[in-house]
Amino acid sequence: MVTLNIIDDEIFAAYVFYGGILAAKMLLMAPLTGRLRTSKGVFSSPEDVKLFKKGAVKTDDPDVQRVMNAHRNDMENIYLFFFVAALYMLTGPSKFAALNCFRAFTAARIAHTVAYVCGIPQPARGFSFGVGLVTLAFMIGNILMTFV
Amino acid sequence: MVTLNIIDDEIFAAYVFYGGILAAKMLLMAPLTGRLRTSKGVFSSPEDVKLFKKGAVKTDDPDVQRVMNAHRNDMENIYLFFFVAALYMLTGPSKFAALNCFRAFTAARIAHTVAYVCGIPQPARGFSFGVGLVTLAFMIGNILMTFV
Amino acid sequence: MVTLNIIDDEIFAAYVFYGGILAAKMLLMAPLTGRLRTSKGVFSSPEDVKLFKKGAVKTDDPDVQRVMNAHRNDMENIYLFFFVAALYMLTGPSKFAALNCFRAFTAARIAHTVAYVCGIPQPARGFSFGVGLVTLAFMIGNILMTFV
Repeated sequence: MVTLNIIDDEIFAAYVFYGGILAAKMLLMAPLTGRLRTSKGVFSSPEDVKLFKKGAVKTDDPDVQRVMNAHRNDMENIYLFFFVAALYMLTGPSKFAALNCFRAFTAARIAHTVAYVCGIPQPARGFSFGVGLVTLAFMIGNILMTFV
Repeated sequence: MVTLNIIDDEIFAAYVFYGGILAAKMLLMAPLTGRLRTSKGVFSSPEDVKLFKKGAVKTDDPDVQRVMNAHRNDMENIYLFFFVAALYMLTGPSKFAALNCFRAFTAARIAHTVAYVCGIPQPARGFSFGVGLVTLAFMIGNILMTFV
Repeated sequence: MVTLNIIDDEIFAAYVFYGGILAAKMLLMAPLTGRLRTSKGVFSSPEDVKLFKKGAVKTDDPDVQRVMNAHRNDMENIYLFFFVAALYMLTGPSKFAALNCFRAFTAARIAHTVAYVCGIPQPARGFSFGVGLVTLAFMIGNILMTFV
């Protein structure tokens, strides 16, 4: 039988806080894409071209693709974090491990976005991506070892 | 120390109900894409072409892209809602604010899909997208102010 | 008034376990894409080309697209599962129904990835996708019928 651990208040508050920061960061990607699309006149559908009376439907603009790639990478990682970190809290982690996991992941994902959107030379983006990945892998490992 | 608010029963039931509606809406995007792909013969891989004995692998069909863009936009917003709205309930919102947030977001996202898939002239899609975004921003703001 | 069902311990532990497996499966998609990109020299941005001193920015490589499509399909379905299955547990399902839902979905999504990435002839991928879809639809149906 599995006994669920009561989640520590401080860990849970940190989960909510860093989750909120990450959600805010992701939310900003949409206006960022929108501003880029309107300034460059690169749209995803003819009704947008009509609205702004300029530009064209294009799917291969490198600047727009860059922001969309960063946004997609967020979906691949941050959404996984929301779920994985919640389950990880049920494994009864130490305050030290849990808080630093959440902090490292949040910092890494903000750095990833900056590196991707601004096109900072590698390995900046690769490193920040890797930190996020290792954090997720650590938490998933803990979950599977606890609940197997 | 943070004290978690007990979630109001009625607010929670609304979260589950509107969450279920949004999940059902998203689930429908896959068959919609599938039907479009088979009817137009626009596939994503050679094994699909072989199965249906017609069409070709194409990534630039505007109709298929339109549905896929709508689906991706759902992932960018509705998944964020599932997480953000759950945390928002912990901030002890008023029934009025919470229920109307959930309703506005759900209505906006259904309108967004209809506007995108049917290619309704702008600013229909932009407006419905904006309503969803503002709702998310409002809830994230509340979370961060409560849990900072 | 809605009365929330207490979630059965065994069902909850299964949710965490299969959720952890699915999260681990999704996490592997990133290194898989990365390995393919570096081995084929197909990159998403010029700073990557500079780092590896080979290859080019290309968005239409069929092998890379195949893995990215599988990854996107995971986001469309597995993220939905994380949310839907959590709500489904609140409807007071039988152990039999819940455990087999989780097992069927997990098996189907692993099969889907294998079928997609390896290009196994259809209808392998379509079938596994369908099993996942039906499982999700079943759980969403239960949620909406319980919380309407």
